[in-house]
Amino acid sequence: MFRFLTAGESHGEMLVAVIDGVPAGLPLTNECIDIELARRQKGYGRSERMSIEEDRVHILSGVRFGNTLGSPIALSIPNHDCQSFMDVQPVEQSSKTPDVIPRPGHADLAGCIKYGHTDIRNVLERASARETAARVVVGAVAKRILMELDILIVSHVIRIGRICEEQSSSMSLQKIQELSEASTVRCLDKTSELAMIAEIEEAASKGNTLGGVFEIAASGIPVGLGSYTHWDRRLDGELAKAVMSIPGVKGVEIGLGFRAAELPGSQVHDEIHYDGVSYTRPSNNAGGIEGGVTNGEPIIIRAAMKPIPTLRMQLQSVDMTTKKPVPAFSERSDVCAVPSAAVVGESMTAITLVTAILEKFGGDNLDELRRYFIAYNQ
Amino acid sequence: MFRFLTAGESHGEMLVAVIDGVPAGLPLTNECIDIELARRQKGYGRSERMSIEEDRVHILSGVRFGNTLGSPIALSIPNHDCQSFMDVQPVEQSSKTPDVIPRPGHADLAGCIKYGHTDIRNVLERASARETAARVVVGAVAKRILMELDILIVSHVIRIGRICEEQSSSMSLQKIQELSEASTVRCLDKTSELAMIAEIEEAASKGNTLGGVFEIAASGIPVGLGSYTHWDRRLDGELAKAVMSIPGVKGVEIGLGFRAAELPGSQVHDEIHYDGVSYTRPSNNAGGIEGGVTNGEPIIIRAAMKPIPTLRMQLQSVDMTTKKPVPAFSERSDVCAVPSAAVVGESMTAITLVTAILEKFGGDNLDELRRYFIAYNQ
Amino acid sequence: MFRFLTAGESHGEMLVAVIDGVPAGLPLTNECIDIELARRQKGYGRSERMSIEEDRVHILSGVRFGNTLGSPIALSIPNHDCQSFMDVQPVEQSSKTPDVIPRPGHADLAGCIKYGHTDIRNVLERASARETAARVVVGAVAKRILMELDILIVSHVIRIGRICEEQSSSMSLQKIQELSEASTVRCLDKTSELAMIAEIEEAASKGNTLGGVFEIAASGIPVGLGSYTHWDRRLDGELAKAVMSIPGVKGVEIGLGFRAAELPGSQVHDEIHYDGVSYTRPSNNAGGIEGGVTNGEPIIIRAAMKPIPTLRMQLQSVDMTTKKPVPAFSERSDVCAVPSAAVVGESMTAITLVTAILEKFGGDNLDELRRYFIAYNQ
Amino acid sequence: MFRFLTAGESHGEMLVAVIDGVPAGLPLTNECIDIELARRQKGYGRSERMSIEEDRVHILSGVRFGNTLGSPIALSIPNHDCQSFMDVQPVEQSSKTPDVIPRPGHADLAGCIKYGHTDIRNVLERASARETAARVVVGAVAKRILMELDILIVSHVIRIGRICEEQSSSMSLQKIQELSEASTVRCLDKTSELAMIAEIEEAASKGNTLGGVFEIAASGIPVGLGSYTHWDRRLDGELAKAVMSIPGVKGVEIGLGFRAAELPGSQVHDEIHYDGVSYTRPSNNAGGIEGGVTNGEPIIIRAAMKPIPTLRMQLQSVDMTTKKPVPAFSERSDVCAVPSAAVVGESMTAITLVTAILEKFGGDNLDELRRYFIAYNQ
Repeated sequence: MFRFLTAGESHGEMLVAVIDGVPAGLPLTNECIDIELARRQKGYGRSERMSIEEDRVHILSGVRFGNTLGSPIALSIPNHDCQSFMDVQPVEQSSKTPDVIPRPGHADLAGCIKYGHTDIRNVLERASARETAARVVVGAVAKRILMELDILIVSHVIRIGRICEEQSSSMSLQKIQELSEASTVRCLDKTSELAMIAEIEEAASKGNTLGGVFEIAASGIPVGLGSYTHWDRRLDGELAKAVMSIPGVKGVEIGLGFRAAELPGSQVHDEIHYDGVSYTRPSNNAGGIEGGVTNGEPIIIRAAMKPIPTLRMQLQSVDMTTKKPVPAFSERSDVCAVPSAAVVGESMTAITLVTAILEKFGGDNLDELRRYFIAYNQ
Repeated sequence: MFRFLTAGESHGEMLVAVIDGVPAGLPLTNECIDIELARRQKGYGRSERMSIEEDRVHILSGVRFGNTLGSPIALSIPNHDCQSFMDVQPVEQSSKTPDVIPRPGHADLAGCIKYGHTDIRNVLERASARETAARVVVGAVAKRILMELDILIVSHVIRIGRICEEQSSSMSLQKIQELSEASTVRCLDKTSELAMIAEIEEAASKGNTLGGVFEIAASGIPVGLGSYTHWDRRLDGELAKAVMSIPGVKGVEIGLGFRAAELPGSQVHDEIHYDGVSYTRPSNNAGGIEGGVTNGEPIIIRAAMKPIPTLRMQLQSVDMTTKKPVPAFSERSDVCAVPSAAVVGESMTAITLVTAILEKFGGDNLDELRRYFIAYNQ
Repeated sequence: MFRFLTAGESHGEMLVAVIDGVPAGLPLTNECIDIELARRQKGYGRSERMSIEEDRVHILSGVRFGNTLGSPIALSIPNHDCQSFMDVQPVEQSSKTPDVIPRPGHADLAGCIKYGHTDIRNVLERASARETAARVVVGAVAKRILMELDILIVSHVIRIGRICEEQSSSMSLQKIQELSEASTVRCLDKTSELAMIAEIEEAASKGNTLGGVFEIAASGIPVGLGSYTHWDRRLDGELAKAVMSIPGVKGVEIGLGFRAAELPGSQVHDEIHYDGVSYTRPSNNAGGIEGGVTNGEPIIIRAAMKPIPTLRMQLQSVDMTTKKPVPAFSERSDVCAVPSAAVVGESMTAITLVTAILEKFGGDNLDELRRYFIAYNQ
Repeated sequence: MFRFLTAGESHGEMLVAVIDGVPAGLPLTNECIDIELARRQKGYGRSERMSIEEDRVHILSGVRFGNTLGSPIALSIPNHDCQSFMDVQPVEQSSKTPDVIPRPGHADLAGCIKYGHTDIRNVLERASARETAARVVVGAVAKRILMELDILIVSHVIRIGRICEEQSSSMSLQKIQELSEASTVRCLDKTSELAMIAEIEEAASKGNTLGGVFEIAASGIPVGLGSYTHWDRRLDGELAKAVMSIPGVKGVEIGLGFRAAELPGSQVHDEIHYDGVSYTRPSNNAGGIEGGVTNGEPIIIRAAMKPIPTLRMQLQSVDMTTKKPVPAFSERSDVCAVPSAAVVGESMTAITLVTAILEKFGGDNLDELRRYFIAYNQ
């Protein structure tokens, strides 16, 4: 059982993740995790802060001599902005004028009511997307396991605001990876990239923000992850939960997704062929999942992200103390975080796949897992 | 903790559900469950079989003198087609020519590989959408609890194939319920309804099938279900999992969903007002969830369903024994099951909400739950 | 993931169990389950009722042509006493003078307060040990899996009231099984058996009841079930929970158990030898578990059961309506149920082991599981 | 849902715990946690190391201005012995002669086989009882919650080796706490204390080790924690798991425990009285739990701990490389850790109770929880 908990506030001392259930014997270094943290921090449209702070993981436990022990892995990401931490978020008894104006589109107001807070900072420090950095370190460990099983996960951005990528035809995942990593908006074609950057600049100039759509693809997937036998074992459900849980995501689709609702059955379902060695599909409209179970084709997931809710162009809100109308404050100047969310999406996909793989193949150490995995796939 | 397991094959003796964690003292009758089963079976585009078989629940345990006991509730739905059961699905040792041609779009092939089956009937009997009848009886119990808390869940169909409903403006949930229940395709406007029926008839005449999009809405939701504090506590994630797990669903969105990816922030986020008594929102683009937490506005979910994968117009497949190309067989003559899936969607939403409510409010009996619930909402 | 839910009241229509996560391809018949049900019903000291009612399982789903499908298995055990059912426990609205005198030693009073009941029958119908019959059918399925892996679980009674079995020296599990199955009190030596029967008769003649101690032993256990890496993964903890959950059990020990607290370390720990092929132990004071992990030696668990709380010799209680002191009623005439509890203990042990084995070895079907299991043990 | 994960090796950089599900608004300081850490480290019979190293918690997240936020709480306990850490347990690639002689009574051998290790240090660093320090910080948070609900948990030692405490008659929990805190072996009477110390000194002089028995008592428990309705909801099962999971514990009993197996029913079950205000019991042989549910009386748990497995008087083992017989090494010089285990037992009990309380009463913040709790208990 692969399971984890994360902790940490945006201006706290550090983010922490504890992961339990990682097989023993997995090579694990700071480097392979830091690469993922850096990928999350890149992307046109992020605020200045991002470029200053470069996240670095610190492995606290569970690894010895460069290999996992089978015991829980604790990972931390120190927050660099120490002074801010001392002012805003001290653990000890202290006082500070509370922030009392909840921002539309955030958990601020609902969080205060739920937890009985009168200072929205008690909510927003954890509700912040900063939290996803901890998911990314967990995702990096998951990806490290998947790498050993030759499973590849990539992502790219297909829409920012009104600009939609020219449809990628049948590109290999390696090619998608290469092109998206080279793009500041994780877009596969140069023309769309330039248009997306212009879209972001226009929004920025107006004090507005943008969302978009990203796509995650995973190849090397064994047949039979997830199950149709009970509703909560279906892999499409687990993936939907994992991706919908990314802050700002309001829609998730697999394969053709919403487009499948418009077409007749004869144009949707992927016929089954046999090439002399294994079953093949001439199309992958199902996005690699039929009946809640992987069918061996690449998994394709798309997610829609809403615009960042903190705008310079201020939205109307209410002072929680006086109940008077006031404009919401604008803490941070990100305009668009879709490329970053795509990287988090890879992490959540990796975590979901590793969970399913470890449930199916067991294996307390990497050798055992790999042996079972290879035997099954033959 | 509200939890349940379901069991049963399409041509087995019965479907069974066991629900644990229902508060004691809830009035529960066959009638209120049978109504939901009947709603699931209706809908233009279903096969003849549906009209013959009328599902009826049988309460096996957990209820005494018309009220729940707090102990697990076992519910069964007998399958009527007994002869078929004896032939196809006997428990005892027996033999029958195996079905060896997996159907595209189903779990047939992946299921055989995963579980080591050589007869796709060993897969399809459980992978069948018949399984959702058991979810609906669980959903009926969940709805019964929600009714006591004045929470209402409704659904309607907004697309079948190429036909899209005229956008419902700001209709009350009661009105949506009234109109959708009166429509054979759960559509709110008569013009669209006629066009949808024509669309289904056209597909049927060609031996083709159709999918569509349905919307679920829930009102009376307390602020603060779900949480931003850990990724797997976010209610949007849980809802996405619950709805994506419905057979055939390939996309889920909340509030504006994919449309939110196209608009600037200033047009997306719901401003916060105060009407002298409580906080209000002039819009509900968030679909009732901000930061993974309910904000008190109605929850709005939309799901895309692919066309039914079993077509009279046969798709290409492979004989698993000979590995020769053969057409997939066509067992059943449903053309479109979107209205039925919408009802299942209500059930999955009800189950998700009850789970979150019982976690938040505890309460081993209905009185206690209601007392905590009302106190919190004041 | 092996998981299950049970339902059903003592005088309800039936008991039900739904088991999810059983590998496909396991041969399963009514017979192998009914044998376990019969073993549970035997035992000197049970009431007349036991001998009349012979429990029989009915497989409702998850099995086809004599083999498991991988889909959830639903099992029922009809209650024979139909008239009683109609009178006492109807599902429909009805009325009956409530029972208002809670019995000491039962959940009656606490259950009424927790669930808001005013009739203790709403509690005792589910709190009854009748519930364990459903655990035994689940245990029978678990044992069926273990049989395929050459794991054997046996039990015997080592104390009833003041009578303690002569210490079994190093008897093989097969011998233990043979002797305990032949004894009406599951005792291994004839002298103790007769003394135990006399003890029961004496208690019966006084209207009193007895408890005792039973021991469960399991052999063929692979090294490495459970884990020291996180507290809730330790197999000793899981076994303690499983056995302590049996109605009436108030103590659980593994290996030397409480005796280990009295001896110095040099007399407790099992030294490690090597016999040319594998590691061996000259003793098994650890009861097969070191550091929360199985070490390959037989698992040895002992449980203490309190006397049955319903006595003819009535205990003092209080009328919940009038708050006046009254004697508790005496529904049933069992004097001692320790042999029966030992059989339930085997079931709970089997369930715990199967859960750990499926987590470690994965395997969606029996062939796969067996292959991984054998490879690991070589 | 109260849940947590811990991480950290004995000679690693630090121990870490992440706790999710703590209500917001709970006052939490380092001090109230450090007190529990200090209590764990005390006790006659511990090695020198204990007196040098004084554990101190560092709160990393989840607390602001002295109060919990509702977000996950991360806590660390740095290990002081830094040089040892650099030598023994570096995260980075490094090498060191492996330890290849597994110690009897530890997870060493089983752990190596399970996780594929060839160096027992890869096992023992996590299997070490050092891990329980992380449980104690979680337990301290749980106790802090219980304090707000006027629930008190205490412990004392009733046996060390051959020395058994004079039976405590009906002492108040406050008195038990006062006496046990004043004793270096957590024993309530001075005569037994001296005998226990002599017993430890005698064992120490021979290079031997000792176990013992400790008792945990908790008062202020509401009626109705746990449930008889499903086996895995019974609180006695949860408590047995929690306490059995403490390293070295081989037996757990509740109330009369194994003694209940010897007595007739008339001497075991606690009669029910009514004192004009509430139900009372003249005895508490059930240890506060009937039918798996708390009955309002104090919870009484006893646990048997085996002697520490690392002895100066060396036990026989095998070199895993050469397979030759060799004596096991002796790393640490603790002779007896029963008083320390008793403190860990308090923590595990507190954690189990808080879990049950939060499930029953919900409440996202302390005020809400306290309000529901008080209302229920009236």
